[in-house]
Amino acid sequence: MEPQLIERNPLPAGVADRLASQLGFILEVDRLKTVLRASPLAAADRRENDAEHSWHLALMVLLLAEYADEPVDVGHTIALVLVHDLVEIYAGDTPLHDAEAARTQQVREEAAASHLFAQLPADQGERLHALWLEFEARQTPEARFAKAMDRLQPMLLNWLNEGGTWREPGVTVSVVRRRAELVADGSRRLGAALEMLIEESHRRGWTA
Amino acid sequence: MEPQLIERNPLPAGVADRLASQLGFILEVDRLKTVLRASPLAAADRRENDAEHSWHLALMVLLLAEYADEPVDVGHTIALVLVHDLVEIYAGDTPLHDAEAARTQQVREEAAASHLFAQLPADQGERLHALWLEFEARQTPEARFAKAMDRLQPMLLNWLNEGGTWREPGVTVSVVRRRAELVADGSRRLGAALEMLIEESHRRGWTA
Repeated sequence: MEPQLIERNPLPAGVADRLASQLGFILEVDRLKTVLRASPLAAADRRENDAEHSWHLALMVLLLAEYADEPVDVGHTIALVLVHDLVEIYAGDTPLHDAEAARTQQVREEAAASHLFAQLPADQGERLHALWLEFEARQTPEARFAKAMDRLQPMLLNWLNEGGTWREPGVTVSVVRRRAELVADGSRRLGAALEMLIEESHRRGWTA
Repeated sequence: MEPQLIERNPLPAGVADRLASQLGFILEVDRLKTVLRASPLAAADRRENDAEHSWHLALMVLLLAEYADEPVDVGHTIALVLVHDLVEIYAGDTPLHDAEAARTQQVREEAAASHLFAQLPADQGERLHALWLEFEARQTPEARFAKAMDRLQPMLLNWLNEGGTWREPGVTVSVVRRRAELVADGSRRLGAALEMLIEESHRRGWTA
């Protein structure tokens, strides 16, 4: 994998080791701003990147936590969404309907996680790695709600884009409904509202 | 001010009023992704936008809270940075060394805040408005640390860009040091490390 960005201009030797690792990591994850997603923005005619997406999810958690089916720790849920896409810095974004990329996703992302989180002091590297694994496993209320936000957000963008990625070849209303299941899995009420958008989008011809 | 983005495709009438306001707001703040800052990215040759910046600060809080001079509630500090730039959706970014824009900044941002937060249900609008005011006032440990992150982050980007915005006309090392004071105000240790970067940058001729 590529050298760390910080190697371009290493920090002055006087910066303590622990802090130097943390600042090197903080600069390394600037790369998340360059990982493009499939989703179009609502406010401009371009695709969204992972950093923007992660910010959007964090704000959604702050505003929509009241709809979680199980009580969630808001701060912990926000930590999950801030970290959930970091491995894509090295593994790239894997669009939901790219079957070939999906097959190798787990292996690529685990390698990326090991490489990335090792750049932090061990305690923090382990903590972030654990947050990422928790998000992926969806075994806690916080992870289920975080995943619900991750699925809901691009669908809201699609709504404002009169279909957005729903118009791609092979995407039918039943494919969209299957993706939406993870929203209902974290919040029945948000899942029900999303179904109204999907139903209406289909009626308007935005999905096949 | 412009109509809300959601007016392009209003949500189906079946969505409950409270949720419809929340989703309308969540889509409206997509605009934050289009507000450009002066800072260059570390990972690509373009300027950063406010949404990317806000995500970056939130992750920094998660990793650097141990350096806060006073104990901080990490979740609350993250909420502050997620919200701190939202008013720029309507008021625009005000670069630190644009004296003319700075003169009108407060009035523009207060008008923007009233317009923006009124789009949420009243309880949440008041809460986000209060978070923004708390950040601006810097009277709580969380706000001081959030502001320290807000000042530190672009300086880290400048370091990787061999000066970045420090190379702009009128920016001298003493101007940079004055800006850095708010980092030391939240964390003496981070302030001291930043001073090493500033000193070294000046030695290399990246600041006048």
